[in-house]
Amino acid sequence: MMLEVCAYPKPGNVDRCHDYPETRLEHFLASTLFARPALEEAEQGQGRIGEIIKHAVRDTNCHQGGNTHFGAFILLVPLVYGKDIAGAMAAIAKTDVSDAIAFYKAFAMTSVKIHATDELDVNDPHALTLIRDRDMTLLDVMQHSAGNDMVAREWITGFPMTRRGADLLKEIGPGRESIVRTFLVLLATEPDTFIIKKHGLAVAQETMMAARDVLDGKRTAEDLDADCIARDINPGSMADIVIASIFVALGEGWSWDS
Amino acid sequence: MMLEVCAYPKPGNVDRCHDYPETRLEHFLASTLFARPALEEAEQGQGRIGEIIKHAVRDTNCHQGGNTHFGAFILLVPLVYGKDIAGAMAAIAKTDVSDAIAFYKAFAMTSVKIHATDELDVNDPHALTLIRDRDMTLLDVMQHSAGNDMVAREWITGFPMTRRGADLLKEIGPGRESIVRTFLVLLATEPDTFIIKKHGLAVAQETMMAARDVLDGKRTAEDLDADCIARDINPGSMADIVIASIFVALGEGWSWDS
Repeated sequence: MMLEVCAYPKPGNVDRCHDYPETRLEHFLASTLFARPALEEAEQGQGRIGEIIKHAVRDTNCHQGGNTHFGAFILLVPLVYGKDIAGAMAAIAKTDVSDAIAFYKAFAMTSVKIHATDELDVNDPHALTLIRDRDMTLLDVMQHSAGNDMVAREWITGFPMTRRGADLLKEIGPGRESIVRTFLVLLATEPDTFIIKKHGLAVAQETMMAARDVLDGKRTAEDLDADCIARDINPGSMADIVIASIFVALGEGWSWDS
Repeated sequence: MMLEVCAYPKPGNVDRCHDYPETRLEHFLASTLFARPALEEAEQGQGRIGEIIKHAVRDTNCHQGGNTHFGAFILLVPLVYGKDIAGAMAAIAKTDVSDAIAFYKAFAMTSVKIHATDELDVNDPHALTLIRDRDMTLLDVMQHSAGNDMVAREWITGFPMTRRGADLLKEIGPGRESIVRTFLVLLATEPDTFIIKKHGLAVAQETMMAARDVLDGKRTAEDLDADCIARDINPGSMADIVIASIFVALGEGWSWDS
């Protein structure tokens, strides 16, 4: 989480050279510090995934910067719990309705917006009743969201974007520049669902093509960054996936420190 | 430690907008993450100060960025151990020869340079024999260094610069800008002993006067920053003291998050 937020220039997102008015570099870094107890809990490989995600959200909610790492925790908690993608998938398969309920309670603590017409709206107390009535597991909840949310989709599809990002980091080589390039390659590959929710598919696709132009040397990352910032386009889900990719790559011997 | 390294522009030191070739923002932030077990050990208020400083140095030495927070740990460990300056002074008074030996072992793990003619050179195995023969406490070691090192001087003189920095943070008000201004005010008040060791007293005094010019609006902090970077002048001891000041101020209700 620390390495991802420091990497720059990262079009549209908070990085070492750019804050949002309400959410600053320090908020992201405070979140990396406050997340430790929950991530240590995950590392034990015991307890329930939904509850651990709730602890991570609760412990990092103490700053005034709004949601910083909710999507990252959805990916990191099972990965840290299971040690790798295979382990994460095994852990995910064991989630039950108690995980789903804990997750919804975590969601309610954040300021993350979901689709207003969603019948599983976290702000609607009726959603928890629906989850209990249908005996939905946390994996079922992710299945429900996977169409509109690439982070949830990682759970359903076996973390393919996370895997691709980890492979890219290792291919490109050690050091911080790899993180920026991996971010750009992933951004050029899939429309960011956080952008879709905020601005619609056309804008997300336009951002994909713009990332492709940066990779092709037709424009600079700094230029795309300035454009994204001016238009309030932030590929937040891609940042969550890059965090998961960094975790997986580090576990496979990739080095940030060179 | 996180708040200090993010604050900018901080003349001469690593900050959000400036790295050194060998030591980057990520190294300082990795150190803030890896320091946690030792700082939690200090927070218990048990065990020995020298040993805890050694643990902090050992645990944060795993990155390739060289020494990042050795001076900060010398101040933070007793402050966290004792909860405040009075508690830190009580803890310091109880150090004995075992603390001094653990501290020298920690020092030997770092790449911190000390005066070549110093008879207590950490690279000299004979130094440990001298410490044992003289039954020196860690407070005695700091007394020995206090003339040339403002961090050691804080131990001997009751943390007056730390206190002044904490008061400045509270006076100036909440938020990140307070950290930069506090840094500048302290820099304009005392010659940084890290600069003296590297460049001599004249350069340290010149840096003091330059900081005063920034406070008086005669030049910008950015301009002084560029000048310090060009001349390899980094007020590293002042950064350590500002870290201690932030800890004390936070304990007294100052808020970084506004």
